[in-house]
Amino acid sequence: MGDEFDERLKLTASTDVPAGLSASLEGEYDAGWSVGGGINGGFQLALLGQAMRATVPDKPDPITVSAGYLTASDAGPVTATTRILRNGGSLATVAGDLTQDGTPRLTALATMGTLAGLPVSELDRCEIPVPDLPPRDRCLSNELAPPEFRAVAPFMDRFEMLFDPRCVGWAMGQPSGRGMLQAWFRLPGGRQPDPLSLLLAVDALPPVSFDLGRPGWAPTLELTVHLRALPAPGWLRVRHETRVVAGGMFEEDCVVFDAADRLVAQSRQLARLPRG
Amino acid sequence: MGDEFDERLKLTASTDVPAGLSASLEGEYDAGWSVGGGINGGFQLALLGQAMRATVPDKPDPITVSAGYLTASDAGPVTATTRILRNGGSLATVAGDLTQDGTPRLTALATMGTLAGLPVSELDRCEIPVPDLPPRDRCLSNELAPPEFRAVAPFMDRFEMLFDPRCVGWAMGQPSGRGMLQAWFRLPGGRQPDPLSLLLAVDALPPVSFDLGRPGWAPTLELTVHLRALPAPGWLRVRHETRVVAGGMFEEDCVVFDAADRLVAQSRQLARLPRG
Repeated sequence: MGDEFDERLKLTASTDVPAGLSASLEGEYDAGWSVGGGINGGFQLALLGQAMRATVPDKPDPITVSAGYLTASDAGPVTATTRILRNGGSLATVAGDLTQDGTPRLTALATMGTLAGLPVSELDRCEIPVPDLPPRDRCLSNELAPPEFRAVAPFMDRFEMLFDPRCVGWAMGQPSGRGMLQAWFRLPGGRQPDPLSLLLAVDALPPVSFDLGRPGWAPTLELTVHLRALPAPGWLRVRHETRVVAGGMFEEDCVVFDAADRLVAQSRQLARLPRG
Repeated sequence: MGDEFDERLKLTASTDVPAGLSASLEGEYDAGWSVGGGINGGFQLALLGQAMRATVPDKPDPITVSAGYLTASDAGPVTATTRILRNGGSLATVAGDLTQDGTPRLTALATMGTLAGLPVSELDRCEIPVPDLPPRDRCLSNELAPPEFRAVAPFMDRFEMLFDPRCVGWAMGQPSGRGMLQAWFRLPGGRQPDPLSLLLAVDALPPVSFDLGRPGWAPTLELTVHLRALPAPGWLRVRHETRVVAGGMFEEDCVVFDAADRLVAQSRQLARLPRG
């Protein structure tokens, strides 16, 4: 492994990975990545993305990745295994699993490619507005979250998040009921965003169910992320919203824009609504 | 197999499928399901969904399914294989592949459950508007499509589709440029919609790239479908749109509403923009 993402993810690779049909990597989840019932789902996906990148190093970026969350993960050792299903032209399809104690926790399919090499078209456009976040000095830092919240979600301290004050009423028992959360987001220490860190960004904010007045753990059933462009250096803007709550589940759509006002990631997950 | 979906899909099962950890089914693609470069992607997904259903018959509905399209499929024999990754409580996670001549064509992950048994919540809501389709007698039937188009897409004749006349300008060389297509949709012979048929419905219309002035085959890289409710009998309304065209790709979001104005399916795919 050995690229800088390792350090951030605290993955301790004990196996060299030749580019080939399958790979297995050993790592360790730090308890600091916990949130609610287990290790954060976006973090797990970024870890698996890292293993997928090691499997097809000439196609380093997950252009699409879809994950099924099987069982909550715990702090401790984790094994990532990957299989190349197809590799040709500019894209590869790679399957991957994260297991702990022999039990699969996360399984995913990714289309790997190279964001830096994508073509430009005269049809290029983005009809999704940049999140209308107030300036950062008028937003509320995750460091202001109540200690009891941070104790359940130590994971939040791994980032700098500056929340739109209009969507944090839930923290004071006054959810807006809209089902929307948005924030400025960056990695700590002035670290710049990269493609794998976008897999973290799409699942880092609290679930929008908080803003519906239903706090609590909202386990993800399925999460799909599309990476649409290489992120520019600087703060990201992340917006989550749900439009359909039905059958004890809600979809959470996320968009991530970079400092150049470009949409860099889109995601959708289906999650279980916490019990009322 | 033996349920009525068989007949519509022209799947000839040659293997009895015991509910178990894995299953293999043999079928046959009819050339009538072709469109452009191969067998329609939604049809393939419905076929695989049928195999997944046979694998966990007590959880018959794909609540979520994410598929990677590896290689175009051709008319002829096809093998569906499935593996149960987790089965507990009300949901199961099942992986599945479709192969032809030993080559994987489609690989997918599904969360299987029972749409009929989902709970109701006071938070239930749908913020997505019902597609604003004109009455059916003012819409344009797929039977009016030019013969040369129907020759390339015989698949279209498997359904009744009544298109909003405001979004078929592309058929006369006058695309709107909006990137939106919507239509009334139903199965032939008065057949009522069921969950697996929704996997067909989300990928049955021409790609929205037609409405952007870029006709031609737009191969799907990844397609994720969430089934949100059991469809009521009657016509479906299907709306496709894209909001982000970038890097030679576009996302296509689809919503399907039933005759009771209920959102029954949401999907998103990332597809390659046809070359200009």
